Amino acid sequence: MKLTYSPASPFARKVRIAAIELGLIDRIEFVPTAVAPAKPNDEYAQINPLKKLPVLIADNGDVILDSYVIVEYLDELAGGGKLIPASGPTRWKVKSDHSLLQGMLDSMLLCRYERMVRPQGLQWQAWSDDHWNRAWQGMARFEQQADVLSRPLDIVQIALVCVLGYADFRFTDCGWRKAYPNLDVFNEKMLSRPSVKISVPPPA
Amino acid sequence: MKLTYSPASPFARKVRIAAIELGLIDRIEFVPTAVAPAKPNDEYAQINPLKKLPVLIADNGDVILDSYVIVEYLDELAGGGKLIPASGPTRWKVKSDHSLLQGMLDSMLLCRYERMVRPQGLQWQAWSDDHWNRAWQGMARFEQQADVLSRPLDIVQIALVCVLGYADFRFTDCGWRKAYPNLDVFNEKMLSRPSVKISVPPPA
Repeated sequence: MKLTYSPASPFARKVRIAAIELGLIDRIEFVPTAVAPAKPNDEYAQINPLKKLPVLIADNGDVILDSYVIVEYLDELAGGGKLIPASGPTRWKVKSDHSLLQGMLDSMLLCRYERMVRPQGLQWQAWSDDHWNRAWQGMARFEQQADVLSRPLDIVQIALVCVLGYADFRFTDCGWRKAYPNLDVFNEKMLSRPSVKISVPPPA
Repeated sequence: MKLTYSPASPFARKVRIAAIELGLIDRIEFVPTAVAPAKPNDEYAQINPLKKLPVLIADNGDVILDSYVIVEYLDELAGGGKLIPASGPTRWKVKSDHSLLQGMLDSMLLCRYERMVRPQGLQWQAWSDDHWNRAWQGMARFEQQADVLSRPLDIVQIALVCVLGYADFRFTDCGWRKAYPNLDVFNEKMLSRPSVKISVPPPA
């Protein structure tokens, strides 16, 4: 299998952590791929018209997206029910929490594009404030959920550590550790896993 | 169950069509909800920090998001495997095609916000061109897939008709019917379903 990848992508990081934890990392070839808003990449658009990272190209050539579906696919390859509950009432909570974290990452990327990538003079402060608030209020939600932060590893914890890692990477001074001390403890605990430690984004 | 809803939201439309097709619409109360970029809605942010439509509030109070997870939940309530294959190799193609359509809708919304909602003078043409191209190239992908357009109803067809309906609603002159005649035939066929017809967005 091949995975289109960039060390800066929190979505690709999520898949990488999952693949390591599921024991599948040796079966995946990482394909370095550069995408940026407002910049064409016609070669990659042939694979994924959304021009987003990551996609998984399965051994039969099927292109699997998005990062959540890729984790579902890998989870099934590993036997099923490892990182996403296969049944039971907790399943909808896990899926919904993951959707929330996915949306928080989307908003953080929009916020970064607005502040750092969009040409000077075209910034709309209310837009970036709105999207930052979505991520920030989402963190507040998880700060209060001791069970989510302490249970055995799952897709929610992996996505949450990717949110926090992306905050460190692109919003260095946002102060999430001070505002959310439970998330700080959680993040430190997660960093004791080699999968999480090795995939921390490089210094910006 | 309650569903936060706006007739203008293509994501909420997708859930509405699915609920009708699954025979569950009478169990869902629609809760009109207004969200807009760069405008706070503190009441709704308590329910969904992402401030996005729709979410489903289950009878036990659980908040289920996003629109795809809601459809999965409703599909299971209806017996499972109705709109999303429960197993088999086609499942990953269906999930991946749906992710592509979901991303196309995200890009179309970003494009609309850029052109119509952002204050005059702050537009970045390359950004809206990029996002429009993602949707447009995604349509091209489906134009060529006769099997997707003709098989029994599933989540991919529902999401695709929501993409096309949103193009009619917000990008009136984009010319998708001329560029993609197979999608035009597909869309007309889908409109013969009451679920699709009744949920067409109102004139803008």
